[in-house]
Amino acid sequence: MQETLKKIVENTPGAKGAILMGFDGIAVDQYVAEGAEDTDIESMAMEFSFRFIELKNAAESLELGDLSDISIKAEYGTFLVRCLSSEYFVAVLLESAGHFGKGRWMLRSSASSLASEL
Amino acid sequence: MQETLKKIVENTPGAKGAILMGFDGIAVDQYVAEGAEDTDIESMAMEFSFRFIELKNAAESLELGDLSDISIKAEYGTFLVRCLSSEYFVAVLLESAGHFGKGRWMLRSSASSLASEL
Repeated sequence: MQETLKKIVENTPGAKGAILMGFDGIAVDQYVAEGAEDTDIESMAMEFSFRFIELKNAAESLELGDLSDISIKAEYGTFLVRCLSSEYFVAVLLESAGHFGKGRWMLRSSASSLASEL
Repeated sequence: MQETLKKIVENTPGAKGAILMGFDGIAVDQYVAEGAEDTDIESMAMEFSFRFIELKNAAESLELGDLSDISIKAEYGTFLVRCLSSEYFVAVLLESAGHFGKGRWMLRSSASSLASEL
């Protein structure tokens, strides 16, 4: 799992870290890029996780079905999320949105491997 | 404004509607695609708008700065959001995520024109 998270970060230019977390805000595992050790990806994912549950519930009540991806682009970072199950998600934090597509693809291609370890 | 929303929908394959709304859930204007008249984009945007405020607040408290884009991909639809100001956003609902990039680009290229009308 640590290896998969590391692969996501190392293969996405500008990625500062990746994390696997429950929607309850409890981290399973994480990997922070070399040189980005001050990135507190756990606090960030935890802070967002409670909002993600609400988005999931809203999508269901709007008959949009299961939520699979969420992305949030802000001034100083882009946070990409892929839902692994109704309980867990994997996320990557990018310095900028320049490699949005690559980050999303890395999350998607790693999802089944991560889900199989849960 | 109606013309700009129409342009977003007509230039994004699979778009069902576009809306300009305040983060308080009150719609300013909207446009629904021909043949998608049963799409209640207003209820959808309203339901999400309250969650968006929370995401905005979370991003600020995490020192990620101002939120500019949110995207939510679910089983039966993809909802793309572009913030226009601290009070308003424009959003487009896509049938699938196939034209995600085009939808995002249409929102971005229309943002300054829409913001100037607010």
